[in-house]
Amino acid sequence: MGRRLLKQLDQTYGFDEVAIVPGDVTINPELADTRLTLGGHVFEAPFLASAMDGTVSPRFATLMHEMGGLGVLNAEGVYTRYDDPYSVLEEIVSMSKAEVTEYLQQVYSEPVQEHLIGSRVQEIKRSGAVCAVSFTPQTTKRLSPLAVEAGADLVFVQSTVTTARHMSNSYRGLVFSELMENLKVPVVVGNCVSYNVALELMQTGVDGVLVGVGPGAACTTREVTGVGVPQVSATLECAAAREDYFEQTGRYVAVITDGGIRTGGDVCKSIASGADGVMIGTPFAQAEEAPGRGFNWGMANAHPELPRGTRIDVGTKGSLRQIMYGPTSVTNGTQNLVGALRVAMGMCGAYTINDMHKADMVVAPAIKTEGKFFQMAG
Amino acid sequence: MGRRLLKQLDQTYGFDEVAIVPGDVTINPELADTRLTLGGHVFEAPFLASAMDGTVSPRFATLMHEMGGLGVLNAEGVYTRYDDPYSVLEEIVSMSKAEVTEYLQQVYSEPVQEHLIGSRVQEIKRSGAVCAVSFTPQTTKRLSPLAVEAGADLVFVQSTVTTARHMSNSYRGLVFSELMENLKVPVVVGNCVSYNVALELMQTGVDGVLVGVGPGAACTTREVTGVGVPQVSATLECAAAREDYFEQTGRYVAVITDGGIRTGGDVCKSIASGADGVMIGTPFAQAEEAPGRGFNWGMANAHPELPRGTRIDVGTKGSLRQIMYGPTSVTNGTQNLVGALRVAMGMCGAYTINDMHKADMVVAPAIKTEGKFFQMAG
Amino acid sequence: MGRRLLKQLDQTYGFDEVAIVPGDVTINPELADTRLTLGGHVFEAPFLASAMDGTVSPRFATLMHEMGGLGVLNAEGVYTRYDDPYSVLEEIVSMSKAEVTEYLQQVYSEPVQEHLIGSRVQEIKRSGAVCAVSFTPQTTKRLSPLAVEAGADLVFVQSTVTTARHMSNSYRGLVFSELMENLKVPVVVGNCVSYNVALELMQTGVDGVLVGVGPGAACTTREVTGVGVPQVSATLECAAAREDYFEQTGRYVAVITDGGIRTGGDVCKSIASGADGVMIGTPFAQAEEAPGRGFNWGMANAHPELPRGTRIDVGTKGSLRQIMYGPTSVTNGTQNLVGALRVAMGMCGAYTINDMHKADMVVAPAIKTEGKFFQMAG
Amino acid sequence: MGRRLLKQLDQTYGFDEVAIVPGDVTINPELADTRLTLGGHVFEAPFLASAMDGTVSPRFATLMHEMGGLGVLNAEGVYTRYDDPYSVLEEIVSMSKAEVTEYLQQVYSEPVQEHLIGSRVQEIKRSGAVCAVSFTPQTTKRLSPLAVEAGADLVFVQSTVTTARHMSNSYRGLVFSELMENLKVPVVVGNCVSYNVALELMQTGVDGVLVGVGPGAACTTREVTGVGVPQVSATLECAAAREDYFEQTGRYVAVITDGGIRTGGDVCKSIASGADGVMIGTPFAQAEEAPGRGFNWGMANAHPELPRGTRIDVGTKGSLRQIMYGPTSVTNGTQNLVGALRVAMGMCGAYTINDMHKADMVVAPAIKTEGKFFQMAG
Repeated sequence: MGRRLLKQLDQTYGFDEVAIVPGDVTINPELADTRLTLGGHVFEAPFLASAMDGTVSPRFATLMHEMGGLGVLNAEGVYTRYDDPYSVLEEIVSMSKAEVTEYLQQVYSEPVQEHLIGSRVQEIKRSGAVCAVSFTPQTTKRLSPLAVEAGADLVFVQSTVTTARHMSNSYRGLVFSELMENLKVPVVVGNCVSYNVALELMQTGVDGVLVGVGPGAACTTREVTGVGVPQVSATLECAAAREDYFEQTGRYVAVITDGGIRTGGDVCKSIASGADGVMIGTPFAQAEEAPGRGFNWGMANAHPELPRGTRIDVGTKGSLRQIMYGPTSVTNGTQNLVGALRVAMGMCGAYTINDMHKADMVVAPAIKTEGKFFQMAG
Repeated sequence: MGRRLLKQLDQTYGFDEVAIVPGDVTINPELADTRLTLGGHVFEAPFLASAMDGTVSPRFATLMHEMGGLGVLNAEGVYTRYDDPYSVLEEIVSMSKAEVTEYLQQVYSEPVQEHLIGSRVQEIKRSGAVCAVSFTPQTTKRLSPLAVEAGADLVFVQSTVTTARHMSNSYRGLVFSELMENLKVPVVVGNCVSYNVALELMQTGVDGVLVGVGPGAACTTREVTGVGVPQVSATLECAAAREDYFEQTGRYVAVITDGGIRTGGDVCKSIASGADGVMIGTPFAQAEEAPGRGFNWGMANAHPELPRGTRIDVGTKGSLRQIMYGPTSVTNGTQNLVGALRVAMGMCGAYTINDMHKADMVVAPAIKTEGKFFQMAG
Repeated sequence: MGRRLLKQLDQTYGFDEVAIVPGDVTINPELADTRLTLGGHVFEAPFLASAMDGTVSPRFATLMHEMGGLGVLNAEGVYTRYDDPYSVLEEIVSMSKAEVTEYLQQVYSEPVQEHLIGSRVQEIKRSGAVCAVSFTPQTTKRLSPLAVEAGADLVFVQSTVTTARHMSNSYRGLVFSELMENLKVPVVVGNCVSYNVALELMQTGVDGVLVGVGPGAACTTREVTGVGVPQVSATLECAAAREDYFEQTGRYVAVITDGGIRTGGDVCKSIASGADGVMIGTPFAQAEEAPGRGFNWGMANAHPELPRGTRIDVGTKGSLRQIMYGPTSVTNGTQNLVGALRVAMGMCGAYTINDMHKADMVVAPAIKTEGKFFQMAG
Repeated sequence: MGRRLLKQLDQTYGFDEVAIVPGDVTINPELADTRLTLGGHVFEAPFLASAMDGTVSPRFATLMHEMGGLGVLNAEGVYTRYDDPYSVLEEIVSMSKAEVTEYLQQVYSEPVQEHLIGSRVQEIKRSGAVCAVSFTPQTTKRLSPLAVEAGADLVFVQSTVTTARHMSNSYRGLVFSELMENLKVPVVVGNCVSYNVALELMQTGVDGVLVGVGPGAACTTREVTGVGVPQVSATLECAAAREDYFEQTGRYVAVITDGGIRTGGDVCKSIASGADGVMIGTPFAQAEEAPGRGFNWGMANAHPELPRGTRIDVGTKGSLRQIMYGPTSVTNGTQNLVGALRVAMGMCGAYTINDMHKADMVVAPAIKTEGKFFQMAG
């Protein structure tokens, strides 16, 4: 009897394990064009703010627009469950750590009020901003048309893991191709981490794919279920699907790395891995203008059987402008994210995001030799 | 003279080094069937509680049965050495750290009272639970018939490292095939970590094999003797033996990962590595109903020449129901273990444990970037 | 449709990941010749002090010369912006951490006074020392002739990432070959990390190449932009370019590892990776004679869009002589750097730096098992 | 021009990176024969105590003999420099940390008194113990005959890195083959880490080779000079040389792993890597009977240009008997080293040290997941 081969385990990489190699030619950072095109909309900065209640309010979505990015509003959060979401936010923010988890469970057990979806969309549209709203697969078919009727420009459909085939079987017949036809606005779906799933999602006609499942070792999804793929590898996979799909069809679907991004370095590595843009939660929740005022908490309804996200104290670090464009005296890479991307593109000789996809990356040791000695800026 | 080749060292992996990749298709978690069949008995939840005195009492075995799992009683522990084990447990639990090691040595130097084996078995059987008892190889031949006569459904034979050939040479002629014939109840043996040993054990006719020797770098066996194999690799090896053995004989022998499992993620990775079930100590010892009331200690007689297990303060974390089924507000993966398995199976499109064996896994960086920044649930 | 191949990520190594293997023959350390030849100048010790204001003053440059090395003066720092730089240094050093960042920004917003360039050069030349001055690419064409006219022996041109082709396009037509012809003194340029860039720089006729971009995981460049290559791999690449260039042209261009070097071990690994010399900041800023008096701060103008280097408290550890030649009772490798190099060369049987380039290196685990137990000197 | 290949860096392993795989057959630990034969002398336990003044005194050498091992006396330490070494030890042990480094330098600047070499040898011989004394290469030719005349059974020649060819060129013509002929007692030399050097040393006729240069990342040699090879790889290399040499000549030269061993696990991994015995410092310096009374310090004269070993507080952990044979309640593997070796041999089915050389090893993750959760004995 021959000996069976063991399951093959491929090595994967996250942000901390890789580094970008400077190019053979460099350019001045001011020559770098960082634009992202998503569903026909052009964004000067390829940055999306995550659909979390502590991060994106209608007001914050407007501000993201002014900064050249896109804030995605959670269409199933406090803004659509409460006429006055701000008093709820006030409660969440001022409550003690011991009380807040139970309170959050109460807050999100209130039903979504359908009329509020349109109101919030109109609130964003009145400011002149591009309006993007996010739904879970369970509610998309029913609720997303309300947002589109009110003027929403983009619809996001997000769950921890999304596959084209599951949607159609489980969630009241949510077929993305039908959804796209009905809504007549661009749809972005996620999250996924593998070539096959990204490709199948693209084949349904969606305009963007969000990448990221259990990205970090400390991530709740990965700790609780063991499921997850580090973001560099996940982005490389989905970007490969995009290239193949583009070669075959001529249609370019945006790939957005979503989750685990903490620094400008992580943003640049996402792009160098093939992302067209990044979706960020915590770094934006740390903006002075964020509705969570220094706190952030997970999306509701993620997994009813598993622990809900708890409120996390992320602190307030600066204005959104500083976080995106500086100036900053912070040297840990959490501010001036657009500036960091420009400088990295300059060092790689990348005139466009697409050029930056071709930058070389290497696996570089992640272990920091702190304490004993520090290192100067290289 | 040609240069001799050095010994080849294969890379192995533990729970912290791997992650599960979501499937191309996903299913709703409620469709996942988590059943384990062991020796003809069917368990709704593929969870076994370790035969440690601080974890499984007759009462706790009953409770495990009610939860759909199996509690294995140590047939050479306080329950069979003392008429009143509960006063002994009371002493162990209330004693100072300084005194307890010596006291434990005294406790386990008292002889096993043969009549108590039957009593404990009957105690479990009266509750309607499946009754499993564990013996060391040294005593199995003499004592296990007493348990079976009293109605035990399953016999476990456990030592740090068990091989089919050693047993027959050393322990008063313990030949597993003869044992099986005499006892006429299913037998589960362990522990082992390699293809060859697992296969030879299966060939003796046993119904289950326990996997795990020195699983973690912090494990006493590994620190003291250098011997050990991380659990993902060990489970992959033993599961490969099961597949080959099944292909050859048509008989399916359960593979149970035993040791080092701390979170739902570890459970899911065990199953994805090929385990049919998991055996867990500490997470169950942390149940409110556990006899160790927040403490746990190793099995007696493990290695007479080496240090005995000391009493460890594991704390009490919730009811057994919460630990197995939630609800929970704990986000570190140590509660709602069955729910976590269902969600992971859903994300992998696995309808059965057998489907879950086919889930993809990757090597993912284990180093956590704590402190500087945290990561939101992925 | 065939599946696209993912971007290939090569493994790279920093100082902490490698170790040098002793040679088949060893020699007595006193037989080791550590000389570096750079632009026709011979240095007994292959050590350059970085062009940072807290490290190299004209006086410190003289001291480096006396020690057999080379101190490179920042020609765009306090020494050329202020008639009395020492009162500015006094302010920087005595100011509170809260005030100093803003003060540093003020300090470096004063313009360079062209006449001071010549004065500082003459100050160094009068002492009999070899005089090296460092410029940024932006100012090199305009300012470096002033230094050369005043007697400077070597011109350094340094930016975070330097490529031959970028220079000629962007910085007012800075073409290295023209610069060399005009200046008629040797030119050293950097920084770079790859074979191609190093080779192209060598082909412009420069006399030395500085190696190092974002060398460490904790490096600001790498954290902020994700760009960087660990120093062992970067040095191996650039040294390979030097060897190929030498084979083709017969001209030997010095490769200097610059950045991330903290210990004698790091120095030796740089040389074993192919460096002809090392450029060091912090370890020299820790000398009693350093102008920063226990503080160090980054070069000005590095990246206008990104955070400027902040003042770092490096402490004062001993005299420059002790740091370079001992004697020392410090056992962490930060003192007696030349002695360490000699001993390592002895253990590798290397009579010259060139012999040391041929020493074997291995990848050796970097993780330290501190706390639990310590290890004696091997 | 073709691109030059980069230097190849092989992966190496230390104790923390590997684990031993249990065998297909196991045996009872009491059947394991742990004997080491070194220069014709047979030792029940393959343990040598390092020639450090805080570890081995004449009295401790006798005790090691009684325990079945071998204590090697430093023939150039306090015992041969002072008529009354015990008052010097008293000073070293009772002095403050601030004073002791300078005092140690004074202590070892006193000359060796040649007549004391014979006295110490006779002291050991009178007790009936096998007597082994250690010299540096510089003094071996002159001083070792004095030890042999007085009855020494074994001569050790030790320096950080020893090669056959260096010795003959540098140290007053120390040719090992001549030395062996003159002394007419077995000679053990070291240290070395590579196949070639070990083979050449064996070819000079020596009876044993000591393995270990800069074994750990925290090792002074490795931190200061970058030179070092982790012990598992170094032992595998030298053991391969022994096998090839034995095949060619029929003469078996003992390979002794020396340095970096802290636990029973490390001992077992050394043997599984091919060592015939281990040389240990700190774990024996922690014995109640050790002359350093809880302190240890490095061998004198190791590298005159580099920092001398400082006094390290190792603590007193138990009697030598407990450290070697137990019983012990310590579970971190630092006690009952012989018992640990027996148990490991049992789990690998190894009847002899030679059988244990054939045990499988794997690369197993070294990172410990402490804090969050602990792991029970495996």
